[in-house]
Amino acid sequence: MGKVICVGLGPGDPELMSVRADRLIRTARDVAYFRKAGRPGQARQIVEGMLDASAVEHSMEYPVTTEIPVADPEYNRLLAGFYDDWATRLATMASDRDVVVLCEGDPFFYGSFMHLHSRLQGRTRIEIVPAITGMSGCWTATGQPITWGDDVLTVLMATLPEDDLARRAADTDALVVMKIGRNLPKLKRALARAGRLQDAWLVERGTMPGQKVQPLCGVEAPVPYFTIAVVHGNGRRP
Amino acid sequence: MGKVICVGLGPGDPELMSVRADRLIRTARDVAYFRKAGRPGQARQIVEGMLDASAVEHSMEYPVTTEIPVADPEYNRLLAGFYDDWATRLATMASDRDVVVLCEGDPFFYGSFMHLHSRLQGRTRIEIVPAITGMSGCWTATGQPITWGDDVLTVLMATLPEDDLARRAADTDALVVMKIGRNLPKLKRALARAGRLQDAWLVERGTMPGQKVQPLCGVEAPVPYFTIAVVHGNGRRP
Repeated sequence: MGKVICVGLGPGDPELMSVRADRLIRTARDVAYFRKAGRPGQARQIVEGMLDASAVEHSMEYPVTTEIPVADPEYNRLLAGFYDDWATRLATMASDRDVVVLCEGDPFFYGSFMHLHSRLQGRTRIEIVPAITGMSGCWTATGQPITWGDDVLTVLMATLPEDDLARRAADTDALVVMKIGRNLPKLKRALARAGRLQDAWLVERGTMPGQKVQPLCGVEAPVPYFTIAVVHGNGRRP
Repeated sequence: MGKVICVGLGPGDPELMSVRADRLIRTARDVAYFRKAGRPGQARQIVEGMLDASAVEHSMEYPVTTEIPVADPEYNRLLAGFYDDWATRLATMASDRDVVVLCEGDPFFYGSFMHLHSRLQGRTRIEIVPAITGMSGCWTATGQPITWGDDVLTVLMATLPEDDLARRAADTDALVVMKIGRNLPKLKRALARAGRLQDAWLVERGTMPGQKVQPLCGVEAPVPYFTIAVVHGNGRRP
């Protein structure tokens, strides 16, 4: 009897994978990963050159990503069916061998695997390999510590309403904002209301080729969904 | 000319170090690490068996840890002198070779290295290798995802006043609390006031031998300073 092993890939630089992740990926016989239909997929790209020639690949292609609003019941119905289907397929595979599921970032931190994890409970053995979060890669890329002493850190999704973003950005020391993409104008308004816009940095492709770190206030163009914003804390320092 | 390379060690399991950290540590000629005087030191213990036989070790022993209250000006004066001294020593070493500084967890996330980092600016080249945070290791150990969908995550130090802890614990989806130690009774009162005590988990020695995960409400005994508390989020899930 095998198990489903969800391996966190970290922020994007293959050298920032854990030693355990590196070994599991290089020796995997069956490898599954999420991607948008018709795209190579970020997770698969990170492990390029690492898979054994005989490894069997299973691309789990989302039935929908941004074509339908998240609030539409149809969005939920399509994704639930997709996760149900893949949970069954992975459990079946794991009945006689180990299956490695690749996940960008840290699997239990806003990851997609958790929707399979909840459906796999009691059906197979599961192992999770934690990883460096995308936000760690991004705050390291800014060249300054994110938190000092007793600083409070708040992590927000830019998908939240502007009022929530503004209130919480004003009420924290250090701040990380994820899922920015088309929410950039709203995020800029919220940070300005909170008095934090001038201290905010935007990190695109953190730790990867083409990494870009710039003051958020000057960014106008659309940015990728996985861009991360950072406001550093200023706590106690001897 | 060399540089000072701060290598994050991750949550404690040596296999959870990054591939880059593993290589830098195994090939290091000079290795520095913080520790309490008279103790082996957690960072040094994590790399046991990895250092080359010819590596030169530099133990940076804190002049004070818990003997003086943090708020005492003497605490600040002693630590500032200690960091000044080691910044100079590391910059001198790095004038002709690379020096690896070991740091538990992720260096820019509440790490001690940042006090050297600020003092080394303009004096030598510096490289930071991010790592899996202690909190990632701990929430993975609970076997449940920490954040889903649009969940807000708040990270608090248990050294904060009880009123702050209670207010912020009530106003977040997912919660991580660090630096617990002798602050456990205060933290329990704050979580009870926030209605979050029944959902809180306490993780000791996450990812290391002797790892212990238990409901926080039942813990009475003193716990180590590096114990971490976790309350999981409950956001959107298709």
